[in-house]
Parts: sequence; C-alpha cells; structure tokens
Amino acid sequence: MTALDLQHCLALDAADPLAHFRDMFLLPEDVLYLDGNSLGALPAATPDRMSEVVRSQWGIGLIRSWTASHWIEAPQRVGGKIAGLIGAKTNEVIVADSTSVNLFKLIVAALQARPGRRTILSEAGNFPTDLYMIQGAIAAVGGGCRLETRPRETLLEAIGEDVALVLLTHAHYKTADLFDMAAVTRRAHESGALILWDLSHSAGALDLDLNAAGADLAVGCGYKYLNGGPGAPAFLFVAERHHATLCSPLTGWMGHAHPFEFTDDYMPAPDIRRFLCGTPPILGLAALEVGVDLIGQADMPLLAGKSQQLCRLMIDLVEQECGFAGFELLGPQRDAIRGSHVSFHHAEGYAIMQALIADGVIGDFRAPDAIRFGLTPLYLRFADIWEAVQRLRKVMAERRWDQDEYRVRATIT
Amino acid sequence: MTALDLQHCLALDAADPLAHFRDMFLLPEDVLYLDGNSLGALPAATPDRMSEVVRSQWGIGLIRSWTASHWIEAPQRVGGKIAGLIGAKTNEVIVADSTSVNLFKLIVAALQARPGRRTILSEAGNFPTDLYMIQGAIAAVGGGCRLETRPRETLLEAIGEDVALVLLTHAHYKTADLFDMAAVTRRAHESGALILWDLSHSAGALDLDLNAAGADLAVGCGYKYLNGGPGAPAFLFVAERHHATLCSPLTGWMGHAHPFEFTDDYMPAPDIRRFLCGTPPILGLAALEVGVDLIGQADMPLLAGKSQQLCRLMIDLVEQECGFAGFELLGPQRDAIRGSHVSFHHAEGYAIMQALIADGVIGDFRAPDAIRFGLTPLYLRFADIWEAVQRLRKVMAERRWDQDEYRVRATIT
Repeated sequence: MTALDLQHCLALDAADPLAHFRDMFLLPEDVLYLDGNSLGALPAATPDRMSEVVRSQWGIGLIRSWTASHWIEAPQRVGGKIAGLIGAKTNEVIVADSTSVNLFKLIVAALQARPGRRTILSEAGNFPTDLYMIQGAIAAVGGGCRLETRPRETLLEAIGEDVALVLLTHAHYKTADLFDMAAVTRRAHESGALILWDLSHSAGALDLDLNAAGADLAVGCGYKYLNGGPGAPAFLFVAERHHATLCSPLTGWMGHAHPFEFTDDYMPAPDIRRFLCGTPPILGLAALEVGVDLIGQADMPLLAGKSQQLCRLMIDLVEQECGFAGFELLGPQRDAIRGSHVSFHHAEGYAIMQALIADGVIGDFRAPDAIRFGLTPLYLRFADIWEAVQRLRKVMAERRWDQDEYRVRATIT
Repeated sequence: MTALDLQHCLALDAADPLAHFRDMFLLPEDVLYLDGNSLGALPAATPDRMSEVVRSQWGIGLIRSWTASHWIEAPQRVGGKIAGLIGAKTNEVIVADSTSVNLFKLIVAALQARPGRRTILSEAGNFPTDLYMIQGAIAAVGGGCRLETRPRETLLEAIGEDVALVLLTHAHYKTADLFDMAAVTRRAHESGALILWDLSHSAGALDLDLNAAGADLAVGCGYKYLNGGPGAPAFLFVAERHHATLCSPLTGWMGHAHPFEFTDDYMPAPDIRRFLCGTPPILGLAALEVGVDLIGQADMPLLAGKSQQLCRLMIDLVEQECGFAGFELLGPQRDAIRGSHVSFHHAEGYAIMQALIADGVIGDFRAPDAIRFGLTPLYLRFADIWEAVQRLRKVMAERRWDQDEYRVRATIT
C-alpha cells in the first residue's frame, strides 16, 4: 500500500459531494471535533431558530402557540421527518422523552404483547442504559421475567421459545460493531419474538431501513448524529402493524385519545401518539427539528459511504503513523459491518485521550481502556482525520500523556 | 360593601411590594395574560441565557460543557433551588423528565415500599394525567393493584389498611381547591400509607412546606408558575428518609451510582439522583433555571398573599360587574383554601372564552364548561384584573360570544 498523505486526504475532500454541509455548522476554529457521536455539533441555523421560539412563540404567542405555532404537533412532525432517515413510514415515529424512557415503554409493551414468554434477550456489554432499563422493567412487572445477556457470537442461538423480546443496539457504542438488522430480525420472528433496535449510534450516520428489515420496534437518540443539542428529546418507532395492540405503560395525558376532554379514564390514542406521555419539550424539539431538517437534505447512502471512508482512513492512518504506539483496533476490520466511530484499546487510553484533548483533538474515553473517535460524515473533512492522527502521533512519540494531570480521572469524561 | 373601582386597584398596585417583578418579564403589550398557570410568561433574562447555552456552551464548548459548564449537575442544582420554594431540603428535589413520567416513578416505588397493600387512592376528577399514570402503573405491575377514586368529601375516610399510596393534587387544576397538606399527610401516615403531592398548580405561587407537613413524595411542573418555558422539565421530591429504600422503576443510566463506569448491572445512586433516568434535557433545564432563579428572589409568603388578593379581587369584580351574566364560581369562596387561579361555570363557557381571547384577555377553558383565569402573582397587576373583568363584562353585555366562530371547538384550547 502506498503511504497515505495529506494530499490524498485533501483530494478526498475536494471530491466529497457532502463537503458543503460543513458550513452549515458552527464549529470552533481551534479544535478537531471527533465526538459528534456523543454530542453532535451546533447547526448554524439553530441559534436563530431558538431565539424565534423563545422570543416570539413563547414570549409573544404564549399559550396560543400550542396551536398557532403548531407546538402540539411537533412530536409527530419531527418524528415523521426522522422516519425518512431510518426507513420508516411517517406515522411510525414520534419524538418523546429520553431514549431510556422510551426503552421502558417498549420493553413493557413487548412483554404484554407476548404473554407467557418471560425472557428478554440482549447483548452482554450493550450500552448500559439498555440493560438497566430491562432490569428496571422486569423488576416492575415481576412475573418471573428475566434478562438474558449473551456475547454477540452466541446471541442468535439463544433466541428460543421463551424469548418475548430481543433488544439490541444496532451499532455498538464502543466497538461500532453492526448487527445485520434484517438477519437478526428474521431470526427473532422465526421464534415468535419481537425485536427492538436501539439506533442511538446509527440514526443520522448510517443508511437504515427498518421496514425492509421487518423491524417491530426501535428507539434512538436526538443529540448524537441528529445534532439536536445536549439532552435532546429522543424518538421511538413502532411498526404500524403493532399500533392497535401495543400499549405504553406510561399512560400520560398526551398519549390519550382525547387529552383535552379531561376524562378520568385513560384511553390510548389510536396511533403512534399513544407512546407520548407528558407535555412535549418544545425548546428541545425546536432544536432537534433544525438538526433533523439538515440531515434530511443529505443523501443517506452517500452519508453512510462517507462514514465508512472516514473510519477506514482513521484506522489506516493510525496504523501508518502510530504503529509504534501499541493501539489495537476494537471492533470490526471490515468496513461494511462498522458504524461511524472507531475505538482503539490502549492500556493508557485515559491519559492519552486527556493529552489529545489538551492538544485540541476532542474524542472520548470509554471505560475501561478505549479511546473513541466519532467520525460524523456531515461535518468532518478527510483532512481533519489526517491532522488528528498527526497530533495523536505526537502525543505518543513525545509521551505527552505520561503526566499525572492526565491520569486523574474526573467523574465525567 | 363599597363598589370596587379602578382607583382601588391602582392603589393596590402602588402598594404592592412585588410590583417590580413585572419588569423582569417580557409580556406582549396588547394582551392581558391570565393563563400563567398553563404556560408561564417569558422571563426577560431567558433569551440571552438560552443564546449563551446554545452558542457558547453547546456550539463552542461542545461535549466539554458537561463538566466545564456544569451541565451534569444541572438536575440537582435546579432541583435544589426549587426545594427552597416548596419547603424541602436541597438534596430532596431533582429536575427530571415530565410530571407524568415522575408520577410513574414514584407510584411504582411507593407500591414496592408498601408490599401487601394494593390500593392507590386519589380524587375523582383529579388532573387526568395523575389518574392515567396510576392506571398505567397498576396495569404494568399487576398483582391485583387498583385505583380508588373518591370525591373530596369522602377521601379521608377511604384511607384504610389496604392503601399503599394517597396521590393528590394540592391545588385542583380546575377549581383551585386546596387540600390541607399537613392534615391529609397525617391521616395517610396514621394508616401506614405514603403520600404523593402533585404541586403542579402550587409551586411558585403558594407558600408550601413539604417537610413541615411530613410529606413523603411530590412532583411538579416546570412550565406553569416556575416560568420554565413550554414543556419545561418537571421536578420530583423524595423525603430524605426514603432515599435509601425507594427505587425508581425507570432505572436509566443517569440514576446509576456510577454511570460512567459502564457496567452491565444497575446499581441505584445513593441519593436523589437515583430518580434520574436518561440524559438530562440541558436546553430545557437552562430555561427553567432562569425562571426558578427569578421566583427565588421573591418572598414566598408575600407571593402567596398576593395570589389570594388577586383571586379575591377577580371574584368580587365578576360579581359586581358581571352579576347579570350567570357566572358561578367553581371552587371555594374562602381565600385561605384557594390556589392561584379562579374558574367560573357558565353553560356557554367555551364561546365566552373564545370571545374574550379575541378581545385580548387570555384565559383558558376546561371541559365541560369552566372558564379559568390563572392569576400569577409575580407579574400581574391588580389593574390587570380590573381591565380583564371590564372586557368580560362587555363580552357578556354585548353577547359577543354568541357567534358561530366561537362555538367551533379546536382540538386544543
């Protein structure tokens, strides 16, 4: 292989049909931001939009804005736009609550829809909140329900007659390992189980088709590749065939068929709105809508292709430039089964990431020893990857990480 | 009684020690806003604060702001400030999710804390989401749990040996009827039940003391008298004596004792943080904090006293000016047992409110026939009440409500 160089990266940028999207974000000049899979960057249109929602819609419109500014429809409207990014129908997605809360709704709904089956199957080492929400849900519903976790290699064979729900994260938060959504969904259905995909590390970066895969349920995050802002509201997907039968246990007034009749008895809305709970978070929804509209302008297969290219470039460059440093790729070597981030194992990973951040390359650390780089295709340049790896090389060559100040772990990283 | 007049109202305003707070809100010139109990007004400091959080903290700080801008502490920090408004200790309140979701957490936690008891007692005609969330929770946990609703008059006598939890709204959303928090709490405890107070229509307008009353649990709304913006995050209170034993069923990663260790097994935080679930909504929290800080500058007994005065004035003026029109006060005549809003029954209530809104007086309608006026003590003037009632008088005297366009009910009012 010819050595990769900056010229090669610049040529890739020059040929990138998505390059113009970078100018639609407000990114600080002095950092290389490789953490968009943890918190997406700020779209340039967001500040003005927020100002309008705050000053005009809230400040002047006041309560009238629930109808006049269409606040009440925002969960469905933004959900419908997200549907277009994940291969769902407009009426199958709604924005509500957090990913964790949405997991709870769908876990309990799935258990009720598969009476007699008592096992929820997930992957050992799945993103913690997926496992935690299963643990909380089965503790709440009782009845001998249990969580079974398996390593990825033996997951499929564990989908047996007692499994009510298979809950998996499509792109692993640490390794970026992808599940074959269609194959796993098929296997779950063969055993009579429902499947719930967590798309938190996929939506907005990968080319998804929930309905082609036959998926039943999905959840996902608004603040990563959808660029909805810190703690943005999350989304959930329920395939239309389940709308009449699946019910949320969080039967809040916004999920009622007639919320403004103020009756004493709950009656679920006939459609996806039954998965709403409380009053929708309008400020968060407004910011999220800007991010979603922006991604909606991009071609998803192009975006997913660039994700693969960026990750491949990073892996090859780390090998070429930092071969001496002892990094070990976590997750797949094969591009087709990798999400939009790359992680490397290194025993000194924590200190290395602190030194790198001090040098203006923002990635993150995931316990116990992974450094992780989110490579957002919408606003990163190939040349950014080149520069980031050059700085990583210097951190390693000069042992800049080997300082006490970089070893002290903050509670939050 | 001498007739009330505008001079009287202006004199009350001139003597009002809270009058200066009005200038700390951005209220439109052309309306009288009597709906702050549905959506609070915009604090003047909020737009700049939101701009800073969006442009600087998110846009430039990016992921670093979770620590550098103290985002991660926001649920506890803002909760601690709300604690000061409701008679709780700083460590007993946290901001999270919606009121509905928080109800679910505490309902299920209470059922688990009172094993063997299977009844949840509430008031017939309580705010719907309180009843709906009980219905959803008992359907989820099963085990023969049931909801019993009683009219206010016979509630106390229904607190028997099977009651695990009494869940009541302190100020009734329609009538503003107040429960005697201390007396009802005492009665619940005598029977071994826990009590959960919904403070949605109380917090920020009334002088509350949860701990003096011995309350166990409470929830409340951020977008009413706390002026946190549309769909603001909500808060919950758990008395410190329950922190070690009560557990949320919504065991999301932010409620974990060590969320950033990314372990597979849930372990609740030792303190109020165990009632967090997903990633906190930072934009909503930022707006809420401005509203809470503003109320924190006011003296709560003064605020509650002005609430009573405003409501009394409205009731007396409606009687004096609109005595011909057939309004009937809903809720108590006695000021001491009324919250900060007043409602009137009228068979043509819906059309009357539409005509009134068209004339610049924004109140709201609650099915089947109540017109409701939220009288926010922080930013309303006594002269506003005079003017609002003058316009109501005209609407009634000229039968302006008697038009087809005002009779067509929108889905949302």
